[in-house]
Amino acid sequence: MTAEERATDLGLEIPDFAVTPYTGLKYGAVRSHRRVGEVLYLSGHLPELPDGTVFHAGTLGESLTVEEGYAAARLACLNALAGIRLAVGSLDAVAAVIGSVNFVVCRPSFPDIHLVASGCTDLLRDVFGSEIGVGGRTTVGITALARGHCFETVLTLQVATGGLWGDQTL
Amino acid sequence: MTAEERATDLGLEIPDFAVTPYTGLKYGAVRSHRRVGEVLYLSGHLPELPDGTVFHAGTLGESLTVEEGYAAARLACLNALAGIRLAVGSLDAVAAVIGSVNFVVCRPSFPDIHLVASGCTDLLRDVFGSEIGVGGRTTVGITALARGHCFETVLTLQVATGGLWGDQTL
Amino acid sequence: MTAEERATDLGLEIPDFAVTPYTGLKYGAVRSHRRVGEVLYLSGHLPELPDGTVFHAGTLGESLTVEEGYAAARLACLNALAGIRLAVGSLDAVAAVIGSVNFVVCRPSFPDIHLVASGCTDLLRDVFGSEIGVGGRTTVGITALARGHCFETVLTLQVATGGLWGDQTL
Repeated sequence: MTAEERATDLGLEIPDFAVTPYTGLKYGAVRSHRRVGEVLYLSGHLPELPDGTVFHAGTLGESLTVEEGYAAARLACLNALAGIRLAVGSLDAVAAVIGSVNFVVCRPSFPDIHLVASGCTDLLRDVFGSEIGVGGRTTVGITALARGHCFETVLTLQVATGGLWGDQTL
Repeated sequence: MTAEERATDLGLEIPDFAVTPYTGLKYGAVRSHRRVGEVLYLSGHLPELPDGTVFHAGTLGESLTVEEGYAAARLACLNALAGIRLAVGSLDAVAAVIGSVNFVVCRPSFPDIHLVASGCTDLLRDVFGSEIGVGGRTTVGITALARGHCFETVLTLQVATGGLWGDQTL
Repeated sequence: MTAEERATDLGLEIPDFAVTPYTGLKYGAVRSHRRVGEVLYLSGHLPELPDGTVFHAGTLGESLTVEEGYAAARLACLNALAGIRLAVGSLDAVAAVIGSVNFVVCRPSFPDIHLVASGCTDLLRDVFGSEIGVGGRTTVGITALARGHCFETVLTLQVATGGLWGDQTL
């Protein structure tokens, strides 16, 4: 199975950034991605719904449970998948997830930020498979994100540069 | 207009790191940048004046206003521009801002870190123009930076590798 | 002297990830590294002992001294050196430390995170020498890491791609 087939199989509702643009654009002078050679650098992706609603605003260890944080991380990843499609035309152009940096808004001493970040990295594994979809990972508990968001992920990927996908990138 | 012409036009006072070295050198075993192929990795840049003064030390949502944070972010970016010149000889060697990771020291629940980070990314856009100067962006609210600094930015850029600029790099 | 010779000379006890795997594997869907061309992206490395013990759990400026934080940062770097060996076979395959991003769990207003991070970057300099081993650096004071860890480092390196080392990578 390809990544696009798995995404369909999982019933994922990946936004179409050609219709509802990357939400980061509202936050400042920013674009959703850059590609240099076979490395695709995605901008930070948030658990924001296409209508601009902040999903599970709040703080882990205070107003949010690990399950809510996990769901937010999964939504941020869903938005990142939309960013990948926008950048290279298809999830099938991904050769490898290089890594993710995951930021979790939490109280001091909250011990479970890694369980929250798995909402993102589990989805990457499920969509791309263990070989391609499991990359390096860093998870950091922080003080705040824009507009009360509880999670942000920054993905870097290796993508195919030739043939079908090579012409569709910046 | 080129980036160097825009920098002159904006009246930017970009430090010369050959005269007043990159301030990070005081903080540990660190260099201002590395370049691998066409990717220039800048070290973290702070809102520090050439004489070592910490500009707008403090915490957003507590002792500093958004306007002060914005000014600090702009100064950090000015220092990063000096880092670019040191690395590749001229701002005109920049082919694209790949992205910035911006750290803002703030109180919990401070909702406006993105407005602070725009002090950095607005300046990148103004110097390099929208095509080259607007890249990916991540902004994170954190607990502390060295010596009470309120902001740090980490830039990654695509730079020209051949001809005039190709010989001036590490 | 080569980096491997210096590591021996310093008496470093670098874990063997073929025997005691990269500890990050317990935290989620993650691998220790990816390599794309001559860039080696290491996953986040923690000050965790091979038996899974969290070394110097706690918070700088509260329960931990700068010296304890420094020792934790050094241990995280030691684990990263194990990650480098796993990825490219030998420390001698490293052409340059591109940079490190260092996260320090601390109280608000703690002024000395850079002194903590030097536990990592001093060791890189001592093992690889000043030319190769000193790269860009970013140090950020944060709220929490997984399981009470006080420090995490994320390293990016330039590595040799041809000859002896070229065949040993993913």
